[in-house]
Amino acid sequence: MHRGSSTVTDTPSLHRNQGVTAPEGFRAAGIAAGIKASGKPDLALVFNEGPDLSAAGVFTRNKVRAAPVQWSEQVLKSGRLRTVILNSGGANACTGPGGFQDTHQTAEAVAAALSDWGTETGAIEVAVCSTGLIGDRLPMDKVLAGVTEIVHEMAGGLSGGDEAARAIMTTDTVPKQVALHHPGKWTVGAMAKGAGMMAPSLATMLVVITTDAVADAEALQLALKNAAGKTFDRLDIDGSCSTNDTVLLLSSGASEIRPSQSELDEAVLAVCDDLCAQLQADAEGVTKRIAITVKGAATEDDALVGARALARDSLVKTALFGSDPNWGRVLAAIGIAPIELVADRISVSFNGSAVCIDGAGAPGARDVDLSGKDIDVIVDLQIGEHEATIRTTDLSHAYVEENSAYSS
Amino acid sequence: MHRGSSTVTDTPSLHRNQGVTAPEGFRAAGIAAGIKASGKPDLALVFNEGPDLSAAGVFTRNKVRAAPVQWSEQVLKSGRLRTVILNSGGANACTGPGGFQDTHQTAEAVAAALSDWGTETGAIEVAVCSTGLIGDRLPMDKVLAGVTEIVHEMAGGLSGGDEAARAIMTTDTVPKQVALHHPGKWTVGAMAKGAGMMAPSLATMLVVITTDAVADAEALQLALKNAAGKTFDRLDIDGSCSTNDTVLLLSSGASEIRPSQSELDEAVLAVCDDLCAQLQADAEGVTKRIAITVKGAATEDDALVGARALARDSLVKTALFGSDPNWGRVLAAIGIAPIELVADRISVSFNGSAVCIDGAGAPGARDVDLSGKDIDVIVDLQIGEHEATIRTTDLSHAYVEENSAYSS
Repeated sequence: MHRGSSTVTDTPSLHRNQGVTAPEGFRAAGIAAGIKASGKPDLALVFNEGPDLSAAGVFTRNKVRAAPVQWSEQVLKSGRLRTVILNSGGANACTGPGGFQDTHQTAEAVAAALSDWGTETGAIEVAVCSTGLIGDRLPMDKVLAGVTEIVHEMAGGLSGGDEAARAIMTTDTVPKQVALHHPGKWTVGAMAKGAGMMAPSLATMLVVITTDAVADAEALQLALKNAAGKTFDRLDIDGSCSTNDTVLLLSSGASEIRPSQSELDEAVLAVCDDLCAQLQADAEGVTKRIAITVKGAATEDDALVGARALARDSLVKTALFGSDPNWGRVLAAIGIAPIELVADRISVSFNGSAVCIDGAGAPGARDVDLSGKDIDVIVDLQIGEHEATIRTTDLSHAYVEENSAYSS
Repeated sequence: MHRGSSTVTDTPSLHRNQGVTAPEGFRAAGIAAGIKASGKPDLALVFNEGPDLSAAGVFTRNKVRAAPVQWSEQVLKSGRLRTVILNSGGANACTGPGGFQDTHQTAEAVAAALSDWGTETGAIEVAVCSTGLIGDRLPMDKVLAGVTEIVHEMAGGLSGGDEAARAIMTTDTVPKQVALHHPGKWTVGAMAKGAGMMAPSLATMLVVITTDAVADAEALQLALKNAAGKTFDRLDIDGSCSTNDTVLLLSSGASEIRPSQSELDEAVLAVCDDLCAQLQADAEGVTKRIAITVKGAATEDDALVGARALARDSLVKTALFGSDPNWGRVLAAIGIAPIELVADRISVSFNGSAVCIDGAGAPGARDVDLSGKDIDVIVDLQIGEHEATIRTTDLSHAYVEENSAYSS
C-alpha cells in the first residue's frame, strides 16, 4: 500500500491530506458555533448527496450511553442516513431526559434547515455525535443557531472536509483524516477524533467514514464491524471507555461501482487501520507508541485478554515511559490475566531483543535500548498457536497533567 | 477501639509503636546485609520461641510466583513455622530453578544457624519472603553471611521488632507496625511493607503477624483468610499484582490463653485493618486517600467488582489527584464494569455531597471541594441491597515518577 503516492495505478493509495469529502457525493463543513468557551471550531456536518443513502454504525459498549448515541443507534436501524451533525464542547452524556430532547431537537433543526435548502430530510435521517465533558447540558441556543449557519456554509462550497475534521477535535492536537483511492474507480474517506478507542477509550472516539461505492446497509455493516474489531477495538490507551464512542459509515453510490464484499472489507479496514495509527500517535500525553503482541496462546481470546491486560497495566506503562526494560512487570501483569499460561514457559522480547526466556531473565536484558518513540513488546506463552496485538501508549507525566485538570 | 491508649482496661488497645515482638514468645532482628546497593537495612528475621509453633499464610494469586512464595507455601502445609527470614533488595522472582535453589539454601542456612545457637530447626520450619526488583538473582554470598549475622543479632537481644520492620522497606517511606493488646491476656503484633495490596498490588506486600494466643494452624488460617478478604484484598492502589505478596500469622501460645475463634478473628481483623490504613497512606506517590463504596448492588460481588473498576480507572484517579469533582468519569467507568446496573438510576456523592442523582448531574456538582487529603466516593446503583468498599489512592505525578525509573 502506497502512502501519499499520487501516481495513477491500479494499486489503492492512502492520502492523509483528504477526508470525508474525497469520495464523490459528499459535502462537509466545520464552524465555530460558540459551544466551546475557547471560541474554537466545535460544530461539523457531513452531508450525503446520494444517489444512495446507505449507512451503518458501531457504538460504545458502555452501559452508560450518551443521548446522541441512543439517538443515532435508533435512527440507524433504518440503514439510511442523509447527514451527520457532530459537536465538540460537550458530550451530552448523563444529562437525563432533557439531554435526549436536546439531541432530538438538534436532529429536527438539521432536517428543517436541509429541507429549506431544497433537500427534503427527516430527523430520522440525521445522526448526531457529541464529545466533550460528561454531565452538562449543551447550550442549545448556540447549537441551533450553529445548525442554521453550518447548513448555509455546507451549501456554499463543495468541500469542507478539513474544517469538519478540525471542528470535532477536543484534546486532539492534530486533525485526523485519510482517503483511500482505487484509481478511476471508487474511494473511501474518513475523519476521526479522539485520543482513545472504540470500547476502551481515553476520550470519546468519533469517526465518520464515507464512500462513493455502491453498497447496501448490510454490506456496510459487515465491513464496519469487521474493521472495527481489528482496529479500534484493539487500540487501548488506558482501559477507560467513553459514553459517546461512535463510528459511522455512509455510502453515496456516486461512483456507480459495486465492489465485492471482500474489496469493501479490505478498503474499510485499511482506512480504519490508518486512523488507528493516527489516534495512537496523538493520544493524550503520549511519548511512546507501543504495540503489545501476545502469541503462542491457547485461543485468540486469551491472546487478546493478555495483550489488553498488559496495555492497561500502570506499572508496565510507566516503565516504558521511562525507557526502562523492566520485563519483570510484564511477567507480573500477564500473571494475573485470566488466561491459560505456564509461568516458566513465558518468553518476552522488547524491540526484537529477548529479555526473558522460559520465565527467567535473558543475558543483557537490562541493557536493551528503549529510548526511541516506538516499542514492540512480544510475549510468547508457548502453549498454543494464537496471537493478537493491542496498540497502546505509555503512562506519562503529560497524561496525568492533562487528565487531572480537564473539567476545571 | 482506642488508639495509642495505655491505660489498663478490658478494652483491646492498638499501639503503632510496637510490632511483631509485642506478643510474648517472639524475637526479631533487622540488619544491613549488603543486598541493597544503598547499604540500607535489607534482612529481617522473626523468631518464634514457642511453646507452640502454629502458623498460617495467604499468598499472591498471581500465576507468576516468586521462588520464596513457592517455598513458603510448601513449608506452611505442615501448619508449623519456627521462623521467617525476609529480605528486601531483590524479589527473587522469574529467576528459574537457580532462584528456587537460592531460597532453599537460605532456609537451610537459617535452620543451621538456629540449630548452632541451640534451637534445633529444620529448613521446613523456615518461611522465606523477598521483595525488590523482579528478575535478578540474589547476591547469595551476602544473603548467607547476613543469615549468620542476623541470627547472632536476634540471639543477643530480646526485641528487634523495629529493626525488622525497617529492614523490609523498599519504596516505603515509613515502617509499618502495630500491636493489639488485650490487657493482661493476649496480644497480636504485626509488621508490613508495601505500597500496595494482597492480590492487586503496586509493590510486593509482605506482612508478618504474631500472637501469643493459643491457637492451632486451622484457627489461624480461618482468622487470616477472613481478615485478608476484608482488608488487604480491598486495598487496590493500581490494579497491579505482585509475584511475591505474602501474609503470615504465627502463634507462640506463650500467653496460655486460648481465645474463641471469633475473638481471634476480631483481633486479627483489627490488626490487618490498621496495617491497611498505614499501607494506603504510604502508597507510592499518594496525595489522596480515597475510599470508594458501591452500594445498592444486586450482589456483594457486583459491588466489589464495581468499586474495584472505579479504583483502577486512570481517568477517575487523575481527576481526584486534581481535586476535580468530575463525576462523569465515575459514570463512564462504572458503565463498563461487568455488573448489573441501570444507567439512569445511578447516584454518586463525593464527601457526602450529591454530584449525580439518577444518572444526571446534581445542582452544584462542579463546586464540591475535594482539596483535602481524604475523599469518600459513594456510588448508589439503587437496584439491590449489597455494598462493598475499596480503598485506593490518586494517580499523581509522583506515581509516574517513582515507577518510571525503578529498575534503573
